[in-house]
Amino acid sequence: MNDKIALVEAGGTKFIVGVGDASRHIHARTRIDTTRPEETVPAAIDWLRAQGGDYAAVGIASFGPLDLDRTSPTWGHITRTTKPHWSDADIAGPFARAFACPVAIDTDVNGAALAEWKWGAGQGTTSTLYLTVGTGVGGGAVVGGRLVHGVSHPEMGHIRMPRHPADTGFAGHCPFHGDCLEGLAAGPSIVARWGASLSDLPADHIGHDIIAWYLAQAVQTFQAILEPARIVLGGGVMQTAGLLDRVRAIAWEHGGGYYAGDCRTTLVNPGLGHDAGLLGALALALGAADPR
Amino acid sequence: MNDKIALVEAGGTKFIVGVGDASRHIHARTRIDTTRPEETVPAAIDWLRAQGGDYAAVGIASFGPLDLDRTSPTWGHITRTTKPHWSDADIAGPFARAFACPVAIDTDVNGAALAEWKWGAGQGTTSTLYLTVGTGVGGGAVVGGRLVHGVSHPEMGHIRMPRHPADTGFAGHCPFHGDCLEGLAAGPSIVARWGASLSDLPADHIGHDIIAWYLAQAVQTFQAILEPARIVLGGGVMQTAGLLDRVRAIAWEHGGGYYAGDCRTTLVNPGLGHDAGLLGALALALGAADPR
Repeated sequence: MNDKIALVEAGGTKFIVGVGDASRHIHARTRIDTTRPEETVPAAIDWLRAQGGDYAAVGIASFGPLDLDRTSPTWGHITRTTKPHWSDADIAGPFARAFACPVAIDTDVNGAALAEWKWGAGQGTTSTLYLTVGTGVGGGAVVGGRLVHGVSHPEMGHIRMPRHPADTGFAGHCPFHGDCLEGLAAGPSIVARWGASLSDLPADHIGHDIIAWYLAQAVQTFQAILEPARIVLGGGVMQTAGLLDRVRAIAWEHGGGYYAGDCRTTLVNPGLGHDAGLLGALALALGAADPR
Repeated sequence: MNDKIALVEAGGTKFIVGVGDASRHIHARTRIDTTRPEETVPAAIDWLRAQGGDYAAVGIASFGPLDLDRTSPTWGHITRTTKPHWSDADIAGPFARAFACPVAIDTDVNGAALAEWKWGAGQGTTSTLYLTVGTGVGGGAVVGGRLVHGVSHPEMGHIRMPRHPADTGFAGHCPFHGDCLEGLAAGPSIVARWGASLSDLPADHIGHDIIAWYLAQAVQTFQAILEPARIVLGGGVMQTAGLLDRVRAIAWEHGGGYYAGDCRTTLVNPGLGHDAGLLGALALALGAADPR
């Protein structure tokens, strides 16, 4: 039996393509610049063919938004995106046609959420929410072993937020919603307000309190709706020294002891390293993902 | 085979107890005032015994918060509540000991969510969120046929909220969180601000806009996290004339076209009538609920 699995981490600036197996070994990998769908996708397929081409499954963890309705004629396509050339691009179809095997596709953050639940910081829990805070804010949740989907995948970065009392003058940086979580706490909103990334601001800069405060409000909303056993906070912004502890402290204080989960212990850093993207694709391919 | 099912809607002011079956027929029912657990629970059991006592299952839709961890020694108990006498009360245990059959228990709102998904306004969808807006705000969600649980049941009333520009002077009415959704939009918060219920305020009173605005923000947060195919808005406050349409319009406008679900059609009134509480208990007993 051939248990090689083709892995695709489809990002807005690069595709990382690899070959792995169920033991989580990554045998080979390459990087392909994201240009246009008609160039990038065939280049990924060509590389996978050159590695042998005989795969048990293909797992794709892609940027979005994606059509994930298996009954839709545009299943596995990007839907509407601000990224030039990629609106309506078919991501899953070319791989399904090229390789005679099952293809699993979901968002990159859902892949990461599933991988963190299976193998990383959410391992052994009944419910894990993963949030990445970087250029944007995105998230996914695994409940009872399955990724949570509604009519589409979650867009957790766009939840509505109260405003920090010292931050009311900033309109927010989200082109769709202004001052949603992404508009208030993603990297570009930090640069827009204070001219530097959070990790480059002095340790006593109020930006640290403000961003931690927003993330703590988001944590409370996640607790209120899902009560996850583990909340994994990743992404570039979360690498700021001291930020996780600040979020824990504020979320605990503001929660008022109301939630069953203790955010001082449920809030954690990711457990998977720099292979997290390919491991997300692998987790999807291994079939724990529910297509709906 | 005996297919009679014992139904318990355990509320903070009254227990409604009934006998039903899988065809959704309610054969008999009674009302018992909620006094102390050692009086109210045995009274419910005595009435159920007097109806014949031979049940295929017991379904309990209870006020909360509840311990729903099947592996916990206090499974089926109320946990910490502000209601005198009921903290740590064992709700499920006495029924399990009295009747030799499976006992299903969950919150009243989770029962209603499951019943609305199975038989009401969420029928035929892959995901339904139910929110009741009354004395408090509570909610539950069914995704892929299962109620969503984390380390506990959802407390959707306590999500964090932005503030309506004309409502910044009000501190909010939630004893735990001040200006969470429940603190800003539940019935008592309306009376606290304007001295009357929403339906008693004149049609051009700004309270209508403010409450609709808050509920519309909540809807966006629910869409961002779960993207439900159907969002069912029930409870006393939602019976205010015109409120549902206001919420739809504001949620649609503020969503910016970002979500896959169109809240002008996904937002609906409940489909089940005054039997909703017992039907919630029935839905739980019929076993679609996942105990975790």
